[in-house]
Amino acid sequence: MKKQDSNAKVKIIPLGGMEQIGMNITAFECEDSIIIVDCGLAFPTDDMLGIDLVIPDVSYLKQNIDKVKGFLITHGHEDHIGALPYILKDINVPVYGTKLTIALIENKLKEHNLLKNTKRKVIKHGQSVNLGCFRIEFIKTNHSIADASALAIFSPAGVILHTGDFKIDYTPVFGEPADLERFAELGKKGVLALMCDSTNATRAGFTPSERTVGKTFDNIFADHKNNRIIVATFASNVDRVQQVINSAAKYGRKVVVEGRSMVNVIGTASELGYINIPDGTLIDIDQLKNYPDEQTVLITTGSQGESMAALSRMASSTHKKISIKPSDVVILSSHPIPGNEKAVSKVINELSMKGAEVISDDTHVSGHACQEEIKLMYALVRPKYAIPVHGEYRHIMAQRNLVQAMGIPKENVIIMSSGDVVEVGQESWKTVDHVQAGGILVDGLGVGDVGNIVLRDRQNLAQNGIIVVVLTLEKYSNQLLAGPDIVSRGFVYVRESEDLMEEARNIVNDAVTDCLDRHVNDWGKIKNVIRDTLSDFLWKRMKRNPMILPIIMEV
Amino acid sequence: MKKQDSNAKVKIIPLGGMEQIGMNITAFECEDSIIIVDCGLAFPTDDMLGIDLVIPDVSYLKQNIDKVKGFLITHGHEDHIGALPYILKDINVPVYGTKLTIALIENKLKEHNLLKNTKRKVIKHGQSVNLGCFRIEFIKTNHSIADASALAIFSPAGVILHTGDFKIDYTPVFGEPADLERFAELGKKGVLALMCDSTNATRAGFTPSERTVGKTFDNIFADHKNNRIIVATFASNVDRVQQVINSAAKYGRKVVVEGRSMVNVIGTASELGYINIPDGTLIDIDQLKNYPDEQTVLITTGSQGESMAALSRMASSTHKKISIKPSDVVILSSHPIPGNEKAVSKVINELSMKGAEVISDDTHVSGHACQEEIKLMYALVRPKYAIPVHGEYRHIMAQRNLVQAMGIPKENVIIMSSGDVVEVGQESWKTVDHVQAGGILVDGLGVGDVGNIVLRDRQNLAQNGIIVVVLTLEKYSNQLLAGPDIVSRGFVYVRESEDLMEEARNIVNDAVTDCLDRHVNDWGKIKNVIRDTLSDFLWKRMKRNPMILPIIMEV
Repeated sequence: MKKQDSNAKVKIIPLGGMEQIGMNITAFECEDSIIIVDCGLAFPTDDMLGIDLVIPDVSYLKQNIDKVKGFLITHGHEDHIGALPYILKDINVPVYGTKLTIALIENKLKEHNLLKNTKRKVIKHGQSVNLGCFRIEFIKTNHSIADASALAIFSPAGVILHTGDFKIDYTPVFGEPADLERFAELGKKGVLALMCDSTNATRAGFTPSERTVGKTFDNIFADHKNNRIIVATFASNVDRVQQVINSAAKYGRKVVVEGRSMVNVIGTASELGYINIPDGTLIDIDQLKNYPDEQTVLITTGSQGESMAALSRMASSTHKKISIKPSDVVILSSHPIPGNEKAVSKVINELSMKGAEVISDDTHVSGHACQEEIKLMYALVRPKYAIPVHGEYRHIMAQRNLVQAMGIPKENVIIMSSGDVVEVGQESWKTVDHVQAGGILVDGLGVGDVGNIVLRDRQNLAQNGIIVVVLTLEKYSNQLLAGPDIVSRGFVYVRESEDLMEEARNIVNDAVTDCLDRHVNDWGKIKNVIRDTLSDFLWKRMKRNPMILPIIMEV
Repeated sequence: MKKQDSNAKVKIIPLGGMEQIGMNITAFECEDSIIIVDCGLAFPTDDMLGIDLVIPDVSYLKQNIDKVKGFLITHGHEDHIGALPYILKDINVPVYGTKLTIALIENKLKEHNLLKNTKRKVIKHGQSVNLGCFRIEFIKTNHSIADASALAIFSPAGVILHTGDFKIDYTPVFGEPADLERFAELGKKGVLALMCDSTNATRAGFTPSERTVGKTFDNIFADHKNNRIIVATFASNVDRVQQVINSAAKYGRKVVVEGRSMVNVIGTASELGYINIPDGTLIDIDQLKNYPDEQTVLITTGSQGESMAALSRMASSTHKKISIKPSDVVILSSHPIPGNEKAVSKVINELSMKGAEVISDDTHVSGHACQEEIKLMYALVRPKYAIPVHGEYRHIMAQRNLVQAMGIPKENVIIMSSGDVVEVGQESWKTVDHVQAGGILVDGLGVGDVGNIVLRDRQNLAQNGIIVVVLTLEKYSNQLLAGPDIVSRGFVYVRESEDLMEEARNIVNDAVTDCLDRHVNDWGKIKNVIRDTLSDFLWKRMKRNPMILPIIMEV
């Protein structure tokens, strides 16, 4: 790492994560070095029909591949690590992170057969990595997954502090509170810019400690000594799982872990010592029948109402091994992520119909800093520039308002968009460029082969279905040899609409015959006539607009 | 109406509204008389692709048309009146309701050309209607629309009280508080069953008065004397609109009303005297330019992020007459209805990006009774039987828990499903039958012509797109004359996947040729071979599952 230099500049280039929650990835560039903080995916929005996930466009990094020194990962959530297996194929540089983070990344790399070819390095909190002209220090924070880090990025232009996703928990379930002392120390020495999590910037107050949920669990366990208890939460929330296990141990219950991702994460966390399961507590799902209900707890996936997750399958009676009983108590230990509200309601209704009691009050706390914690972070770090990150625009604006109220001048709050290249120096900052950035859609094994046209077609198909019109023409005479035949999918229930479809066929037939009588040879024109005729007819008769696909064959 | 008789029974038959919020309609039957309370629609769930709305299946009423005496409507919301224009075509009986309710129904009937053929009668609170062996009294309640009523249904078997949607507002913006005295009086005389709104039964406490929102408006107007103010709310919430107008008048602002449904409802409400607009307050949208921003307020639709509503169009810069300015203050005066959260966030983000300040704290109160109001209603009415209505199963269960805690025995709480026929008498109740009930899908002008098969096709098309395979065979020889041609929509961006599509075509061609060589004459079999071959190929290569539609023509 080079010494600080009052003329030096560092470029900050978010390639995702600025307009949305998810797909976090930011490049930092100085002279011949580029480092990348996080490499997350985003889940598809409602209009991205059929898309599995979205990864960042890293064209800029590919174009500057020689400079790229490594990935620095703040924590092991999908929106920070999920794109790694895709991006590492093109940008094969070492990956740095804390122990649990690297272990979760390794699980992913194994699935993608990338473990052998990817260099990983475990970094402890307090340790640093030297990469080109950067030195990056990992600093302990709290979050809804263990081993989360903020990063102090020492560059020739000064120190940039990136909080990652964080909250401040004075009584964490595992390990230490966030390293406030180190933040204060850095603040005292001088921090050029603070890039701070905005997710909860619209919420007043202080996010409660994870331990408050443990108290709720204890109370629920105490109140339901005669019931089986099922707890659904995020697989990655190791501390939450620990607290379920603690309550289970306290009340003499055996624990079953159900759901693939839950089994994987708990396995990894337990191997690495991030979760402490007393001997004999964990039993296999097949052993459940050997214990009375009131001596068991199930920890399961599906707290977001995901249709394929274990809890949803239990609720809809499609789980192979667990049937919900009227005496069951189900704890939903998460808040619905925006967009999942209806799916969660559906699961609650299904569980209620089976007679189960569903509890979701005080059973979750956020992993993100609320307003008072954000202010505390700024008060400790006292940066020259504030760069709100991680959030939708309204969250980023909310953080801007907070820091301006704390006295950071308006012109020193930098609001970035993905792709912006902002150059920051000790005297000033400016946006110097905008590089290609955005989401690349992953559908099955296809990466980037579904774009806007395909999505628009899917939306149209989804709303209105499709009508295919086929006909065969004689090659030279252009005579109609067969058809027009009409086949529809997703349009109407054909058996109840036979007359309509017959009428449609006649209308298309007349239109085509008319074209041919007038010696129209251009198939494009004939197809347009078919589309227009049929479309008019259906709109007038049904006020519907199916996709119309004319196909002409020649013999 | 006949006298009360200790042996008489009344049948209660909900034809909708029991498993969901929406599509409220309940029949009451006694001897030769059927009356119907409400006739609402439901909005489509996420899996009902392309569906506009859902109306109840009233087969039972059609089968008993001779008994049906009339519709009694509790208030003018879509989920209570929206299906009337569809159902009245088959069940043309008189419609009874309060003044504003009937006026809103008339607006609907006009659109459907049904005004002439439908008998309507305006009933005042405190008045009764005699229909066959029933007498129905309309009782004043409060709700998020003016003129809401509970119904006391006097039958030979006793009094059934139906609350409709309600809250208790001691300081309503317009008119009187709910008629608690009448509820108490009925309770004292003896009520057989109480059918009570469950929508907010999971929420503790008491829903705040509508007036509290007016106070918030005043504060916002006082704090933003230099900004244009835009308020988005539900068109039907006449009292909310009144309070915006009050604040506007107080602070000397002109009011513009924007959005078709907002203009309609305010027009109707104002004509009937349910809203009081001081002369000169309302201006046309085209006059806006004649006033400085700080002297204007816009009241608009779109508080739920509906993509075609006025606010969404302003936010996305597609509104023809209003451009959002950085100095604008936008008040979202509603909570997102479950399922609309992301759409609302999108609008907030778009408005924020244009620099507008968006305010949504304390700008809305619910129109439904929370737990303390539900308990108050039960305490006043003291029914023998409790029948929780209007809500998802979890809400209905929550009301059950409330009333059991108040001392109504478990066996006297009647949990119904749509279609259940429950017979209630003074000594007992039982479920005596189950009749056809459920949602009928409306898509454009089609009512009921889209069913599960069509929806499943739409979902498949939405997720994966479609591949059409066409080929032409010679009629007698079964020789392949043209094709197989492959056309896809919503599958991949064809120009970037030419090789794949070419490979797919070759594979299908080989499979078809092989069939024909083996003299397979059955087209069904050939189509299956095409589907299987192509489907295997695409799954192996892409892990995708498009709909495959083989079409064979013969010449």
